[in-house]
Amino acid sequence: MSQPSKQRTGSIPGPTVRRLSLYLRELENILESGARTVSSRQLGQVLGLTDAQVRKDLAYFGQFGQAGVGYEVVALIREVRRILGTDHPWNVCLVGVGNLGRALLSYRGFARKQFQIVAAFDNDPKLIGRTVAGADHIIIRSMDELDDAVRRMELRVGLLCVPASVAQAVAEQMVAAGIEGILSFAAMSLALPAGAESIGVDLAVHLEQLTYRLSNRDRDGRRGEAAS
Amino acid sequence: MSQPSKQRTGSIPGPTVRRLSLYLRELENILESGARTVSSRQLGQVLGLTDAQVRKDLAYFGQFGQAGVGYEVVALIREVRRILGTDHPWNVCLVGVGNLGRALLSYRGFARKQFQIVAAFDNDPKLIGRTVAGADHIIIRSMDELDDAVRRMELRVGLLCVPASVAQAVAEQMVAAGIEGILSFAAMSLALPAGAESIGVDLAVHLEQLTYRLSNRDRDGRRGEAAS
Repeated sequence: MSQPSKQRTGSIPGPTVRRLSLYLRELENILESGARTVSSRQLGQVLGLTDAQVRKDLAYFGQFGQAGVGYEVVALIREVRRILGTDHPWNVCLVGVGNLGRALLSYRGFARKQFQIVAAFDNDPKLIGRTVAGADHIIIRSMDELDDAVRRMELRVGLLCVPASVAQAVAEQMVAAGIEGILSFAAMSLALPAGAESIGVDLAVHLEQLTYRLSNRDRDGRRGEAAS
Repeated sequence: MSQPSKQRTGSIPGPTVRRLSLYLRELENILESGARTVSSRQLGQVLGLTDAQVRKDLAYFGQFGQAGVGYEVVALIREVRRILGTDHPWNVCLVGVGNLGRALLSYRGFARKQFQIVAAFDNDPKLIGRTVAGADHIIIRSMDELDDAVRRMELRVGLLCVPASVAQAVAEQMVAAGIEGILSFAAMSLALPAGAESIGVDLAVHLEQLTYRLSNRDRDGRRGEAAS
């Protein structure tokens, strides 16, 4: 962080970083469809954003677009991946092989994005040594092996799929083993030591965003009726 | 909400609405811990936001806070739930009982938030008529029964857990049956008719946000080393 500049990635606002993932997904779709360039307007339309917003977001990373031509899809994908850190593969471990853990072990969406789950851990003796359907190559290991596996496989990222009641303790164990980033599916905030990052995925939150939209529409509908 | 005003919920920015879910989660934790009031600074600290941001977000919904006292937790929870539409229960259906569908059927995080999965559908004859562990009360039905069930159970919201290759077609079938809001776990954008809402949950996106942070830290570290 020696030369602060306007394009320092550390200063990119969170909402922009979140939109980068959306841009990337659409750019990959566009590339599959065979197009070589895309305009900010096209990108914005698919994602429900103004083209000004798209241009502003992408400008954080330097000048990609050419007036009248748009963005080169391949170059933009490469750059967005570089920024997100997915221009190289990541080996990931998973802790807690319950229903959700099982689903994530066989979830295809990770590998497409350079994320490979390479190890799974649980403390249930009935699970240890076994595999789950759809992920036959991953043998579930005891939590006692976490330290060793993290070091040996150079794992930095882990998926936390244990019940909320033990999530904090297990997360601390993961950080102590050397995991730097935790994606947590326990619906609670984790308090981790400095140097460790965590992002919480609370699936109910997504549903709340949906019911917000429906409820809002209902309210608007009622307003409309009252006015007529 | 018959009088349009500056606080019309339709004009609330998306990022604020997303933060409402986070505020709600923390407020519920605070309530459980026994506190009756909370300051914008406390709320912000847990969520990594400035107190100014918290105050600005909550100001969209009117005046809750009292200088020197903070927000009344119970009243604020009630209001945020009202805005998000979760001040009443929602019956939800699930389409596609693969690994992820199974995990979601037994996911405890939904019920806590007033979301109750009451019906599950699949087109696999081997699944129809059966139940899954952790959700014994839900008998998996044939897709042919979707129309009838949506009408009879007055379902408005559905979870879409089918493979990406059929997601668009199945989503259209859900909308035709009367579903107004779809939470999709297929990692692709859905094109739905006007009047239907969808939100996509791409689990890899969350991982990208995590690797962004780690990569950014690495870059900072390297810049730091270069400078030293």
